[in-house]
Amino acid sequence: MSASPALQAALAEIATEIDARFDQFLAVPDDPRADLYRAMRHAAIGGGKRLRPLLVHATAQIFGCDRDCIARVGTAIEAIHVYSLIHDDLPAMDDDDMRRGKPTVHKAFDEATAILAGDSLQALAFEILADPATHPDPFVRAELTLDLARAAGPAGMCGGQAMDLGAARAGFDLAMVGRLQALKTGALIATSVEAGAILGRVAPEGRTGLRGYARDIGLAFQIVDDLLDVEGDEAAAGKKLRKDADAGKKTFVSLLGIEPARERSRLLIDQAIAHLRHYGREADLLRDIARFVLERDR
Amino acid sequence: MSASPALQAALAEIATEIDARFDQFLAVPDDPRADLYRAMRHAAIGGGKRLRPLLVHATAQIFGCDRDCIARVGTAIEAIHVYSLIHDDLPAMDDDDMRRGKPTVHKAFDEATAILAGDSLQALAFEILADPATHPDPFVRAELTLDLARAAGPAGMCGGQAMDLGAARAGFDLAMVGRLQALKTGALIATSVEAGAILGRVAPEGRTGLRGYARDIGLAFQIVDDLLDVEGDEAAAGKKLRKDADAGKKTFVSLLGIEPARERSRLLIDQAIAHLRHYGREADLLRDIARFVLERDR
Repeated sequence: MSASPALQAALAEIATEIDARFDQFLAVPDDPRADLYRAMRHAAIGGGKRLRPLLVHATAQIFGCDRDCIARVGTAIEAIHVYSLIHDDLPAMDDDDMRRGKPTVHKAFDEATAILAGDSLQALAFEILADPATHPDPFVRAELTLDLARAAGPAGMCGGQAMDLGAARAGFDLAMVGRLQALKTGALIATSVEAGAILGRVAPEGRTGLRGYARDIGLAFQIVDDLLDVEGDEAAAGKKLRKDADAGKKTFVSLLGIEPARERSRLLIDQAIAHLRHYGREADLLRDIARFVLERDR
Repeated sequence: MSASPALQAALAEIATEIDARFDQFLAVPDDPRADLYRAMRHAAIGGGKRLRPLLVHATAQIFGCDRDCIARVGTAIEAIHVYSLIHDDLPAMDDDDMRRGKPTVHKAFDEATAILAGDSLQALAFEILADPATHPDPFVRAELTLDLARAAGPAGMCGGQAMDLGAARAGFDLAMVGRLQALKTGALIATSVEAGAILGRVAPEGRTGLRGYARDIGLAFQIVDDLLDVEGDEAAAGKKLRKDADAGKKTFVSLLGIEPARERSRLLIDQAIAHLRHYGREADLLRDIARFVLERDR
Protein backbone atom coordinates (compact mmCIF):
# COMPACT_ATOMS: atom_id res chain seq x y z
CA MET A 1 0.00 0.00 0.00
CA SER A 2 1.62 3.24 -1.07
CA ALA A 3 -1.27 5.66 -0.67
CA SER A 4 -0.39 9.29 0.00
CA PRO A 5 -1.20 10.61 3.50
CA ALA A 6 -4.15 12.55 2.07
CA LEU A 7 -5.47 9.45 0.31
CA GLN A 8 -4.91 7.30 3.39
CA ALA A 9 -6.99 9.72 5.42
CA ALA A 10 -9.70 9.80 2.75
CA LEU A 11 -9.78 5.99 2.51
CA ALA A 12 -10.13 5.63 6.26
CA GLU A 13 -12.81 8.29 6.42
CA ILE A 14 -14.85 6.87 3.56
CA ALA A 15 -14.64 3.35 5.01
CA THR A 16 -16.15 4.59 8.30
CA GLU A 17 -18.70 6.72 6.51
CA ILE A 18 -19.99 4.02 4.17
CA ASP A 19 -20.19 1.46 6.97
CA ALA A 20 -22.21 3.93 9.05
CA ARG A 21 -24.58 4.61 6.16
CA PHE A 22 -25.22 0.94 5.46
CA ASP A 23 -25.69 0.38 9.18
CA GLN A 24 -28.40 3.05 9.12
CA PHE A 25 -30.10 1.95 5.87
CA LEU A 26 -30.05 -1.71 6.87
CA ALA A 27 -31.38 -1.71 10.43
CA VAL A 28 -32.50 -5.30 11.07
CA PRO A 29 -36.29 -5.51 11.47
CA ASP A 30 -37.86 -7.65 14.18
CA ASP A 31 -39.76 -9.91 11.79
CA PRO A 32 -39.04 -12.83 9.42
CA ARG A 33 -37.12 -10.52 7.10
CA ALA A 34 -34.30 -10.32 9.65
CA ASP A 35 -32.08 -12.82 7.82
CA LEU A 36 -32.42 -10.89 4.58
CA TYR A 37 -31.17 -7.74 6.27
CA ARG A 38 -28.40 -9.66 8.07
CA ALA A 39 -27.27 -11.04 4.72
CA MET A 40 -27.21 -7.57 3.19
CA ARG A 41 -25.20 -6.28 6.16
CA HIS A 42 -22.81 -9.24 5.96
CA ALA A 43 -21.90 -8.23 2.42
CA ALA A 44 -22.18 -4.46 2.68
CA ILE A 45 -20.54 -3.58 6.00
CA GLY A 46 -16.89 -3.86 6.97
CA GLY A 47 -14.96 -4.58 3.85
CA GLY A 48 -13.78 -3.45 0.49
CA LYS A 49 -11.71 -0.52 -0.64
CA ARG A 50 -14.81 1.65 -1.20
CA LEU A 51 -13.14 2.87 -4.39
CA ARG A 52 -16.44 3.93 -5.96
CA PRO A 53 -17.69 6.09 -3.07
CA LEU A 54 -14.18 7.53 -2.86
CA LEU A 55 -14.37 8.54 -6.53
CA VAL A 56 -17.76 10.20 -5.98
CA HIS A 57 -16.28 12.09 -3.03
CA ALA A 58 -13.01 13.05 -4.74
CA THR A 59 -14.88 14.37 -7.79
CA ALA A 60 -17.77 16.10 -6.01
CA GLN A 61 -15.53 17.85 -3.45
CA ILE A 62 -13.79 19.65 -6.34
CA PHE A 63 -17.05 21.52 -6.74
CA GLY A 64 -17.73 21.99 -3.04
CA CYS A 65 -20.75 19.71 -2.79
CA ASP A 66 -22.61 18.86 0.38
CA ARG A 67 -20.90 16.04 2.30
CA ASP A 68 -24.09 14.26 3.33
CA CYS A 69 -25.29 14.23 -0.24
CA ILE A 70 -21.93 12.87 -1.46
CA ALA A 71 -22.00 10.09 1.14
CA ARG A 72 -25.52 9.03 0.19
CA VAL A 73 -24.69 8.85 -3.52
CA GLY A 74 -21.49 6.94 -2.76
CA THR A 75 -23.48 4.46 -0.67
CA ALA A 76 -25.97 3.95 -3.50
CA ILE A 77 -23.24 3.15 -6.01
CA GLU A 78 -21.48 0.89 -3.50
CA ALA A 79 -24.79 -0.93 -2.96
CA ILE A 80 -24.82 -1.82 -6.67
CA HIS A 81 -21.20 -2.97 -6.43
CA VAL A 82 -21.91 -5.12 -3.36
CA TYR A 83 -25.00 -6.67 -4.95
CA SER A 84 -22.95 -7.58 -8.03
CA LEU A 85 -20.35 -9.32 -5.84
CA ILE A 86 -23.06 -11.33 -4.02
CA HIS A 87 -24.56 -12.54 -7.29
CA ASP A 88 -21.18 -13.12 -8.99
CA ASP A 89 -20.15 -15.37 -6.09
CA LEU A 90 -23.22 -17.64 -6.43
CA PRO A 91 -22.67 -21.31 -7.33
CA ALA A 92 -24.28 -20.78 -10.75
CA MET A 93 -21.87 -17.92 -11.46
CA ASP A 94 -18.26 -17.89 -10.16
CA ASP A 95 -19.02 -20.27 -7.26
CA ASP A 96 -16.79 -18.56 -4.69
CA ASP A 97 -16.71 -19.46 -1.00
CA MET A 98 -14.71 -16.49 0.28
CA ARG A 99 -14.94 -12.75 -0.31
CA ARG A 100 -13.05 -10.03 1.53
CA GLY A 101 -11.73 -12.72 3.89
CA LYS A 102 -15.25 -13.80 4.95
CA PRO A 103 -17.60 -16.55 3.73
CA THR A 104 -19.63 -15.38 0.76
CA VAL A 105 -23.31 -14.62 1.44
CA HIS A 106 -24.65 -17.90 0.08
CA LYS A 107 -22.16 -19.73 2.32
CA ALA A 108 -22.92 -17.70 5.45
CA PHE A 109 -26.69 -17.84 4.75
CA ASP A 110 -28.10 -19.74 1.77
CA GLU A 111 -28.50 -19.28 -1.97
CA ALA A 112 -32.07 -17.98 -1.88
CA THR A 113 -31.16 -15.37 0.73
CA ALA A 114 -28.08 -14.39 -1.29
CA ILE A 115 -30.16 -13.87 -4.43
CA LEU A 116 -32.68 -11.75 -2.51
CA ALA A 117 -29.97 -9.80 -0.68
CA GLY A 118 -28.45 -8.83 -4.03
CA ASP A 119 -31.84 -7.96 -5.49
CA SER A 120 -32.64 -5.86 -2.41
CA LEU A 121 -29.35 -3.96 -2.54
CA GLN A 122 -30.02 -3.03 -6.15
CA ALA A 123 -33.44 -1.65 -5.21
CA LEU A 124 -31.93 0.15 -2.22
CA ALA A 125 -29.44 1.92 -4.49
CA PHE A 126 -32.21 3.49 -6.55
CA GLU A 127 -34.30 4.23 -3.48
CA ILE A 128 -31.39 6.23 -2.05
CA LEU A 129 -30.76 8.15 -5.27
CA ALA A 130 -34.42 9.07 -5.81
CA ASP A 131 -34.96 10.17 -2.21
CA PRO A 132 -35.33 13.95 -1.72
CA ALA A 133 -32.98 13.57 1.27
CA THR A 134 -30.16 12.83 -1.19
CA HIS A 135 -30.49 16.04 -3.19
CA PRO A 136 -33.10 18.82 -3.15
CA ASP A 137 -33.19 19.09 -6.96
CA PRO A 138 -35.26 16.31 -8.62
CA PHE A 139 -33.37 16.87 -11.88
CA VAL A 140 -30.15 15.84 -10.14
CA ARG A 141 -31.86 12.82 -8.57
CA ALA A 142 -33.29 11.69 -11.90
CA GLU A 143 -29.96 12.19 -13.69
CA LEU A 144 -28.08 10.20 -11.03
CA THR A 145 -30.68 7.43 -11.28
CA LEU A 146 -30.56 7.25 -15.06
CA ASP A 147 -26.77 7.13 -15.11
CA LEU A 148 -26.53 4.41 -12.47
CA ALA A 149 -29.32 2.32 -14.02
CA ARG A 150 -27.55 2.35 -17.38
CA ALA A 151 -24.24 1.44 -15.77
CA ALA A 152 -25.80 -1.43 -13.83
CA GLY A 153 -27.96 -2.95 -16.56
CA PRO A 154 -27.48 -5.07 -19.68
CA ALA A 155 -25.60 -2.27 -21.47
CA GLY A 156 -23.27 -1.99 -18.46
CA MET A 157 -22.26 -4.23 -15.57
CA CYS A 158 -24.78 -7.05 -16.17
CA GLY A 159 -23.87 -7.07 -19.86
CA GLY A 160 -20.18 -7.42 -19.00
CA GLN A 161 -20.92 -10.22 -16.60
CA ALA A 162 -22.97 -11.96 -19.32
CA MET A 163 -20.01 -11.72 -21.72
CA ASP A 164 -17.94 -13.43 -19.04
CA LEU A 165 -20.22 -16.48 -18.81
CA GLY A 166 -19.50 -19.77 -20.50
CA ALA A 167 -16.55 -20.60 -22.64
CA ALA A 168 -16.74 -17.65 -25.02
CA ARG A 169 -14.01 -15.70 -23.27
CA ALA A 170 -11.47 -18.38 -24.14
CA GLY A 171 -11.63 -17.09 -27.71
CA PHE A 172 -11.63 -13.35 -26.96
CA ASP A 173 -9.02 -11.02 -28.41
CA LEU A 174 -7.73 -7.87 -26.73
CA ALA A 175 -10.53 -5.70 -28.12
CA MET A 176 -13.19 -8.05 -26.76
CA VAL A 177 -11.54 -8.35 -23.34
CA GLY A 178 -11.40 -4.56 -23.28
CA ARG A 179 -15.08 -4.32 -24.19
CA LEU A 180 -16.03 -6.91 -21.56
CA GLN A 181 -14.15 -5.09 -18.84
CA ALA A 182 -15.38 -1.66 -19.91
CA LEU A 183 -18.87 -2.98 -19.20
CA LYS A 184 -18.21 -5.29 -16.26
CA THR A 185 -16.14 -2.94 -14.08
CA GLY A 186 -15.56 0.20 -16.15
CA ALA A 187 -19.19 1.35 -16.30
CA LEU A 188 -19.65 1.57 -12.53
CA ILE A 189 -16.29 3.30 -12.02
CA ALA A 190 -17.21 5.79 -14.75
CA THR A 191 -20.58 6.36 -13.08
CA SER A 192 -18.89 7.13 -9.76
CA VAL A 193 -16.95 10.01 -11.34
CA GLU A 194 -19.97 11.05 -13.40
CA ALA A 195 -22.10 11.20 -10.25
CA GLY A 196 -19.55 13.56 -8.71
CA ALA A 197 -19.81 15.76 -11.78
CA ILE A 198 -23.62 15.65 -11.70
CA LEU A 199 -23.58 16.68 -8.02
CA GLY A 200 -21.14 19.45 -8.97
CA ARG A 201 -23.63 20.69 -11.61
CA VAL A 202 -21.00 20.29 -14.31
CA ALA A 203 -22.78 20.41 -17.69
CA PRO A 204 -22.25 17.28 -19.84
CA GLU A 205 -19.98 19.19 -22.25
CA GLY A 206 -17.74 20.12 -19.33
CA ARG A 207 -17.25 16.51 -18.22
CA THR A 208 -14.87 15.40 -21.00
CA GLY A 209 -11.73 15.47 -18.84
CA LEU A 210 -13.39 13.68 -15.93
CA ARG A 211 -14.82 11.06 -18.27
CA GLY A 212 -11.41 10.44 -19.82
CA TYR A 213 -9.92 10.12 -16.35
CA ALA A 214 -12.61 7.63 -15.30
CA ARG A 215 -12.27 5.54 -18.45
CA ASP A 216 -8.49 5.27 -18.07
CA ILE A 217 -8.44 4.42 -14.37
CA GLY A 218 -11.23 1.88 -14.94
CA LEU A 219 -9.18 0.06 -17.56
CA ALA A 220 -5.98 0.33 -15.49
CA PHE A 221 -7.89 -1.00 -12.47
CA GLN A 222 -8.85 -4.11 -14.42
CA ILE A 223 -5.34 -4.70 -15.80
CA VAL A 224 -3.97 -4.45 -12.24
CA ASP A 225 -6.71 -6.87 -11.16
CA ASP A 226 -5.52 -9.31 -13.79
CA LEU A 227 -1.91 -8.85 -12.62
CA LEU A 228 -2.90 -9.42 -8.99
CA ASP A 229 -4.85 -12.49 -10.05
CA VAL A 230 -1.60 -13.94 -11.45
CA GLU A 231 0.92 -12.57 -8.95
CA GLY A 232 -1.15 -11.82 -5.85
CA ASP A 233 -1.44 -13.50 -2.50
CA GLU A 234 -4.78 -15.17 -1.69
CA ALA A 235 -4.58 -14.34 2.00
CA ALA A 236 -4.05 -10.65 1.26
CA ALA A 237 -6.75 -10.68 -1.42
CA GLY A 238 -9.25 -12.45 0.84
CA LYS A 239 -10.55 -14.46 -2.11
CA LYS A 240 -9.52 -17.22 -4.46
CA LEU A 241 -7.08 -16.16 -7.19
CA ARG A 242 -5.92 -17.54 -10.56
CA LYS A 243 -9.45 -18.55 -11.45
CA ASP A 244 -9.36 -16.87 -14.87
CA ALA A 245 -6.23 -18.75 -15.93
CA ASP A 246 -7.63 -22.02 -14.58
CA ALA A 247 -10.85 -21.49 -16.56
CA GLY A 248 -8.88 -20.69 -19.74
CA LYS A 249 -10.30 -17.17 -19.81
CA LYS A 250 -8.41 -14.56 -21.78
CA THR A 251 -7.25 -11.55 -19.74
CA PHE A 252 -5.12 -8.50 -20.42
CA VAL A 253 -2.22 -10.37 -18.86
CA SER A 254 -2.66 -13.62 -20.79
CA LEU A 255 -2.99 -11.69 -24.06
CA LEU A 256 -0.28 -9.07 -23.49
CA GLY A 257 2.14 -10.76 -21.07
CA ILE A 258 2.95 -9.55 -17.57
CA GLU A 259 5.43 -6.75 -18.27
CA PRO A 260 3.61 -5.23 -21.26
CA ALA A 261 0.37 -5.34 -19.22
CA ARG A 262 2.06 -3.54 -16.33
CA GLU A 263 3.50 -0.96 -18.75
CA ARG A 264 0.06 -0.40 -20.26
CA SER A 265 -1.50 0.16 -16.84
CA ARG A 266 1.24 2.77 -16.11
CA LEU A 267 0.53 4.58 -19.37
CA LEU A 268 -3.18 4.60 -18.64
CA ILE A 269 -2.61 6.17 -15.24
CA ASP A 270 -0.34 8.85 -16.74
CA GLN A 271 -3.06 9.51 -19.28
CA ALA A 272 -5.77 9.60 -16.60
CA ILE A 273 -3.81 12.23 -14.68
CA ALA A 274 -3.21 14.20 -17.88
CA HIS A 275 -7.00 14.38 -18.35
CA LEU A 276 -7.14 16.42 -15.14
CA ARG A 277 -4.79 19.14 -16.41
CA HIS A 278 -7.48 21.82 -16.29
CA TYR A 279 -7.91 21.26 -12.55
CA GLY A 280 -5.56 22.53 -9.84
CA ARG A 281 -4.82 21.23 -6.36
CA GLU A 282 -8.54 20.55 -5.78
CA ALA A 283 -8.19 17.46 -8.01
CA ASP A 284 -5.14 16.09 -6.16
CA LEU A 285 -7.25 13.41 -4.49
CA LEU A 286 -8.34 12.12 -7.91
CA ARG A 287 -4.65 12.07 -8.94
CA ASP A 288 -3.74 10.18 -5.76
CA ILE A 289 -6.51 7.66 -6.46
CA ALA A 290 -5.12 7.09 -9.97
CA ARG A 291 -1.68 6.29 -8.57
CA PHE A 292 -3.25 4.10 -5.90
CA VAL A 293 -5.13 2.08 -8.54
CA LEU A 294 -1.74 1.27 -10.07
CA GLU A 295 0.13 0.48 -6.88
CA ARG A 296 -2.49 -1.31 -4.82
CA ASP A 297 -1.64 -4.82 -3.68
CA ARG A 298 -5.19 -6.14 -3.30
CA MET B 1 -62.91 -15.19 -18.06
CA SER B 2 -65.75 -12.78 -17.43
CA ALA B 3 -64.09 -9.50 -18.31
CA SER B 4 -66.38 -6.69 -19.52
CA PRO B 5 -66.04 -5.74 -23.21
CA ALA B 6 -64.20 -2.54 -22.19
CA LEU B 7 -61.80 -4.49 -20.01
CA GLN B 8 -61.32 -7.15 -22.70
CA ALA B 9 -60.34 -4.44 -25.16
CA ALA B 10 -58.01 -2.84 -22.63
CA LEU B 11 -56.39 -6.19 -21.79
CA ALA B 12 -55.78 -6.96 -25.45
CA GLU B 13 -54.44 -3.49 -26.13
CA ILE B 14 -52.10 -3.47 -23.14
CA ALA B 15 -50.77 -6.93 -24.02
CA THR B 16 -49.80 -5.74 -27.49
CA GLU B 17 -48.42 -2.47 -26.16
CA ILE B 18 -46.20 -4.00 -23.47
CA ASP B 19 -44.87 -6.66 -25.84
CA ALA B 20 -43.98 -3.94 -28.34
CA ARG B 21 -42.20 -1.88 -25.67
CA PHE B 22 -40.14 -4.81 -24.44
CA ASP B 23 -39.35 -5.69 -28.03
CA GLN B 24 -37.99 -2.18 -28.50
CA PHE B 25 -36.09 -1.95 -25.18
CA LEU B 26 -34.59 -5.42 -25.56
CA ALA B 27 -33.26 -5.43 -29.13
CA VAL B 28 -30.74 -8.28 -29.23
CA PRO B 29 -27.19 -6.96 -29.72
CA ASP B 30 -24.81 -8.66 -32.12
CA ASP B 31 -22.23 -9.53 -29.47
CA PRO B 32 -21.74 -12.09 -26.66
CA ARG B 33 -24.53 -10.44 -24.65
CA ALA B 34 -27.09 -11.81 -27.12
CA ASP B 35 -28.15 -14.69 -24.83
CA LEU B 36 -28.73 -12.29 -21.94
CA TYR B 37 -31.12 -10.26 -24.07
CA ARG B 38 -32.78 -13.41 -25.45
CA ALA B 39 -33.37 -14.60 -21.89
CA MET B 40 -34.90 -11.25 -20.92
CA ARG B 41 -37.15 -11.39 -23.98
CA HIS B 42 -38.15 -15.01 -23.24
CA ALA B 43 -39.51 -13.92 -19.86
CA ALA B 44 -40.80 -10.46 -20.75
CA ILE B 45 -42.52 -10.88 -24.10
CA GLY B 46 -45.68 -12.80 -24.89
CA GLY B 47 -47.29 -13.73 -21.63
CA GLY B 48 -48.92 -12.67 -18.44
CA LYS B 49 -52.08 -10.73 -17.70
CA ARG B 50 -50.15 -7.41 -17.60
CA LEU B 51 -52.28 -6.49 -14.60
CA ARG B 52 -49.77 -3.93 -13.32
CA PRO B 53 -49.42 -1.95 -16.58
CA LEU B 54 -53.20 -2.12 -16.89
CA LEU B 55 -53.57 -0.56 -13.43
CA VAL B 56 -51.15 2.23 -14.36
CA HIS B 57 -53.17 2.84 -17.51
CA ALA B 58 -56.60 2.65 -15.87
CA THR B 59 -55.55 5.08 -13.15
CA ALA B 60 -53.58 7.55 -15.27
CA GLN B 61 -56.24 7.78 -17.98
CA ILE B 62 -58.68 9.14 -15.36
CA PHE B 63 -56.48 12.24 -15.37
CA GLY B 64 -55.94 12.34 -19.14
CA CYS B 65 -52.24 11.50 -19.11
CA ASP B 66 -50.06 11.01 -22.17
CA ARG B 67 -50.38 7.46 -23.56
CA ASP B 68 -46.72 7.02 -24.41
CA CYS B 69 -45.74 8.04 -20.92
CA ILE B 70 -48.29 5.63 -19.38
CA ALA B 71 -46.99 2.75 -21.51
CA ARG B 72 -43.37 3.42 -20.52
CA VAL B 73 -44.20 3.51 -16.82
CA GLY B 74 -46.29 0.34 -17.16
CA THR B 75 -43.39 -1.39 -18.88
CA ALA B 76 -41.00 -0.37 -16.10
CA ILE B 77 -43.24 -1.82 -13.40
CA GLU B 78 -43.83 -4.97 -15.45
CA ALA B 79 -40.04 -5.33 -15.82
CA ILE B 80 -39.79 -5.52 -12.01
CA HIS B 81 -42.60 -8.08 -11.94
CA VAL B 82 -40.97 -10.21 -14.66
CA TYR B 83 -37.56 -10.07 -12.95
CA SER B 84 -39.17 -11.25 -9.70
CA LEU B 85 -40.74 -14.22 -11.50
CA ILE B 86 -37.39 -15.20 -13.06
CA HIS B 87 -35.64 -15.15 -9.70
CA ASP B 88 -38.54 -16.80 -7.82
CA ASP B 89 -38.45 -19.70 -10.28
CA LEU B 90 -34.72 -20.40 -9.69
CA PRO B 91 -33.76 -23.79 -8.21
CA ALA B 92 -32.61 -22.11 -4.98
CA MET B 93 -36.02 -20.42 -4.65
CA ASP B 94 -39.27 -22.10 -5.82
CA ASP B 95 -37.50 -24.39 -8.32
CA ASP B 96 -40.14 -24.17 -11.05
CA ASP B 97 -39.72 -25.59 -14.54
CA MET B 98 -42.72 -23.96 -16.20
CA ARG B 99 -44.07 -20.42 -16.22
CA ARG B 100 -46.85 -19.06 -18.40
CA GLY B 101 -46.85 -22.38 -20.26
CA LYS B 102 -43.18 -22.07 -21.26
CA PRO B 103 -39.96 -23.36 -19.70
CA THR B 104 -38.67 -21.00 -17.01
CA VAL B 105 -35.62 -18.91 -17.94
CA HIS B 106 -33.09 -21.09 -16.13
CA LYS B 107 -34.53 -24.11 -17.95
CA ALA B 108 -34.57 -22.47 -21.40
CA PHE B 109 -31.11 -20.93 -20.82
CA ASP B 110 -29.13 -21.57 -17.63
CA GLU B 111 -29.09 -20.41 -14.02
CA ALA B 112 -26.38 -17.80 -14.43
CA THR B 113 -28.19 -16.24 -17.39
CA ALA B 114 -31.46 -16.31 -15.45
CA ILE B 115 -29.89 -14.48 -12.50
CA LEU B 116 -28.40 -11.85 -14.82
CA ALA B 117 -31.61 -11.50 -16.84
CA GLY B 118 -33.50 -10.73 -13.62
CA ASP B 119 -30.84 -8.31 -12.45
CA SER B 120 -30.87 -6.60 -15.84
CA LEU B 121 -34.64 -6.23 -15.91
CA GLN B 122 -34.54 -4.54 -12.52
CA ALA B 123 -31.95 -2.04 -13.78
CA LEU B 124 -33.98 -1.53 -16.96
CA ALA B 125 -37.05 -0.61 -14.91
CA PHE B 126 -35.25 2.28 -13.23
CA GLU B 127 -33.55 3.30 -16.46
CA ILE B 128 -36.96 3.67 -18.09
CA LEU B 129 -38.45 5.65 -15.18
CA ALA B 130 -35.50 8.07 -14.92
CA ASP B 131 -35.34 8.70 -18.67
CA PRO B 132 -36.55 12.18 -19.76
CA ALA B 133 -38.43 10.39 -22.58
CA THR B 134 -40.78 8.96 -19.95
CA HIS B 135 -41.85 12.28 -18.49
CA PRO B 136 -40.64 15.85 -19.05
CA ASP B 137 -40.79 16.74 -15.34
CA PRO B 138 -37.83 15.36 -13.34
CA PHE B 139 -39.89 15.60 -10.14
CA VAL B 140 -42.33 13.07 -11.58
CA ARG B 141 -39.48 10.81 -12.71
CA ALA B 142 -37.83 10.92 -9.28
CA GLU B 143 -41.12 10.27 -7.49
CA LEU B 144 -41.92 7.29 -9.73
CA THR B 145 -38.43 5.92 -9.14
CA LEU B 146 -38.59 6.32 -5.38
CA ASP B 147 -41.96 4.65 -5.17
CA LEU B 148 -41.00 1.69 -7.34
CA ALA B 149 -37.64 1.21 -5.58
CA ARG B 150 -39.39 1.04 -2.20
CA ALA B 151 -41.99 -1.40 -3.53
CA ALA B 152 -39.29 -3.65 -5.04
CA GLY B 153 -36.80 -3.67 -2.18
CA PRO B 154 -36.47 -5.28 1.25
CA ALA B 155 -39.40 -3.26 2.63
CA GLY B 156 -41.53 -4.45 -0.29
CA MET B 157 -41.43 -7.33 -2.75
CA CYS B 158 -38.00 -8.73 -1.80
CA GLY B 159 -38.93 -8.54 1.87
CA GLY B 160 -42.13 -10.49 1.21
CA GLN B 161 -40.22 -13.10 -0.74
CA ALA B 162 -37.72 -13.38 2.14
CA MET B 163 -40.61 -14.00 4.56
CA ASP B 164 -41.70 -16.81 2.27
CA LEU B 165 -38.36 -18.66 2.44
CA GLY B 166 -37.71 -21.63 4.65
CA ALA B 167 -40.13 -23.25 7.02
CA ALA B 168 -41.24 -20.13 8.89
CA ARG B 169 -44.48 -19.80 6.95
CA ALA B 170 -45.72 -23.13 8.32
CA GLY B 171 -46.23 -21.31 11.64
CA PHE B 172 -47.73 -18.08 10.30
CA ASP B 173 -51.11 -16.82 11.47
CA LEU B 174 -53.54 -14.80 9.36
CA ALA B 175 -51.93 -11.48 10.28
CA MET B 176 -48.48 -12.72 9.21
CA VAL B 177 -49.77 -14.20 5.95
CA GLY B 178 -51.44 -10.86 5.29
CA ARG B 179 -48.21 -9.00 6.03
CA LEU B 180 -46.21 -11.36 3.81
CA GLN B 181 -48.59 -10.93 0.89
CA ALA B 182 -48.90 -7.16 1.37
CA LEU B 183 -45.16 -7.03 0.76
CA LYS B 184 -44.71 -9.83 -1.78
CA THR B 185 -47.49 -8.93 -4.22
CA GLY B 186 -49.37 -6.02 -2.66
CA ALA B 187 -46.55 -3.48 -2.82
CA LEU B 188 -46.10 -3.69 -6.59
CA ILE B 189 -49.85 -3.61 -7.25
CA ALA B 190 -50.13 -0.55 -4.99
CA THR B 191 -47.24 1.09 -6.84
CA SER B 192 -48.98 0.55 -10.18
CA VAL B 193 -51.99 2.58 -9.01
CA GLU B 194 -49.74 5.10 -7.23
CA ALA B 195 -47.75 5.60 -10.45
CA GLY B 196 -50.98 6.42 -12.27
CA ALA B 197 -51.78 9.00 -9.58
CA ILE B 198 -48.25 10.45 -9.79
CA LEU B 199 -48.60 10.78 -13.57
CA GLY B 200 -52.00 12.41 -13.00
CA ARG B 201 -50.33 14.95 -10.68
CA VAL B 202 -52.65 13.95 -7.85
CA ALA B 203 -51.19 15.32 -4.59
CA PRO B 204 -50.46 12.64 -1.96
CA GLU B 205 -53.40 13.83 0.20
CA GLY B 206 -55.72 13.26 -2.76
CA ARG B 207 -54.62 9.65 -3.24
CA THR B 208 -56.45 8.10 -0.26
CA GLY B 209 -59.25 6.52 -2.28
CA LEU B 210 -56.91 5.15 -4.94
CA ARG B 211 -54.60 3.76 -2.26
CA GLY B 212 -57.51 2.04 -0.51
CA TYR B 213 -58.61 0.59 -3.84
CA ALA B 214 -55.10 -0.70 -4.56
CA ARG B 215 -54.67 -2.22 -1.10
CA ASP B 216 -57.97 -4.06 -1.32
CA ILE B 217 -57.54 -5.45 -4.83
CA GLY B 218 -53.97 -6.49 -3.96
CA LEU B 219 -55.18 -8.55 -1.03
CA ALA B 220 -58.14 -9.95 -3.00
CA PHE B 221 -55.76 -10.84 -5.82
CA GLN B 222 -53.69 -12.93 -3.44
CA ILE B 223 -56.67 -14.67 -1.87
CA VAL B 224 -57.90 -15.58 -5.37
CA ASP B 225 -54.37 -16.81 -6.14
CA ASP B 226 -54.54 -19.07 -3.12
CA LEU B 227 -57.98 -20.31 -4.22
CA LEU B 228 -56.72 -21.00 -7.75
CA ASP B 229 -53.72 -22.79 -6.27
CA VAL B 230 -56.13 -25.19 -4.55
CA GLU B 231 -58.90 -25.41 -7.15
CA GLY B 232 -57.23 -24.38 -10.40
CA ASP B 233 -56.16 -26.30 -13.45
CA GLU B 234 -52.40 -26.57 -14.07
CA ALA B 235 -52.78 -26.49 -17.86
CA ALA B 236 -54.83 -23.29 -17.70
CA ALA B 237 -52.44 -21.75 -15.16
CA GLY B 238 -49.37 -22.69 -17.19
CA LYS B 239 -47.45 -23.47 -14.01
CA LYS B 240 -47.33 -26.01 -11.21
CA LEU B 241 -50.09 -25.63 -8.60
CA ARG B 242 -50.68 -26.80 -5.02
CA LYS B 243 -47.08 -26.10 -4.10
CA ASP B 244 -47.97 -24.10 -0.98
CA ALA B 245 -50.06 -26.90 0.48
CA ASP B 246 -47.40 -29.46 -0.41
CA ALA B 247 -44.78 -27.36 1.36
CA GLY B 248 -46.99 -26.95 4.42
CA LYS B 249 -47.16 -23.17 3.89
CA LYS B 250 -50.02 -21.32 5.51
CA THR B 251 -52.25 -19.42 3.06
CA PHE B 252 -55.47 -17.45 3.33
CA VAL B 253 -57.30 -20.57 2.20
CA SER B 254 -55.62 -22.99 4.59
CA LEU B 255 -56.23 -20.61 7.50
CA LEU B 256 -59.75 -19.46 6.62
CA GLY B 257 -61.18 -22.35 4.59
CA ILE B 258 -62.29 -22.16 0.96
CA GLU B 259 -65.73 -20.55 1.29
CA PRO B 260 -64.80 -17.95 3.93
CA ALA B 261 -61.74 -17.06 1.82
CA ARG B 262 -63.93 -16.61 -1.25
CA GLU B 263 -66.34 -14.48 0.77
CA ARG B 264 -63.49 -12.33 2.04
CA SER B 265 -62.21 -11.75 -1.48
CA ARG B 266 -65.73 -10.63 -2.50
CA LEU B 267 -65.96 -8.21 0.40
CA LEU B 268 -62.55 -6.78 -0.47
CA ILE B 269 -63.60 -6.16 -4.05
CA ASP B 270 -66.82 -4.44 -2.91
CA GLN B 271 -64.70 -2.32 -0.60
CA ALA B 272 -62.19 -1.56 -3.37
CA ILE B 273 -64.99 -0.32 -5.60
CA ALA B 274 -66.45 1.72 -2.73
CA HIS B 275 -63.09 3.50 -2.44
CA LEU B 276 -63.69 4.88 -5.94
CA ARG B 277 -66.99 6.57 -5.01
CA HIS B 278 -65.64 10.05 -5.66
CA TYR B 279 -64.89 9.14 -9.26
CA GLY B 280 -67.45 8.87 -12.07
CA ARG B 281 -67.48 6.84 -15.27
CA GLU B 282 -63.81 7.68 -15.86
CA ALA B 283 -62.93 5.11 -13.16
CA ASP B 284 -65.06 2.34 -14.66
CA LEU B 285 -62.00 0.54 -15.97
CA LEU B 286 -60.60 0.37 -12.43
CA ARG B 287 -63.96 -1.03 -11.28
CA ASP B 288 -63.88 -3.62 -14.09
CA ILE B 289 -60.37 -4.61 -13.09
CA ALA B 290 -61.51 -5.12 -9.49
CA ARG B 291 -64.27 -7.50 -10.63
CA PHE B 292 -61.84 -9.24 -12.97
CA VAL B 293 -59.40 -9.85 -10.11
CA LEU B 294 -62.20 -11.72 -8.36
CA GLU B 295 -63.46 -13.70 -11.31
CA ARG B 296 -60.27 -14.56 -13.15
CA ASP B 297 -59.57 -18.23 -13.71
CA ARG B 298 -55.77 -18.02 -13.99
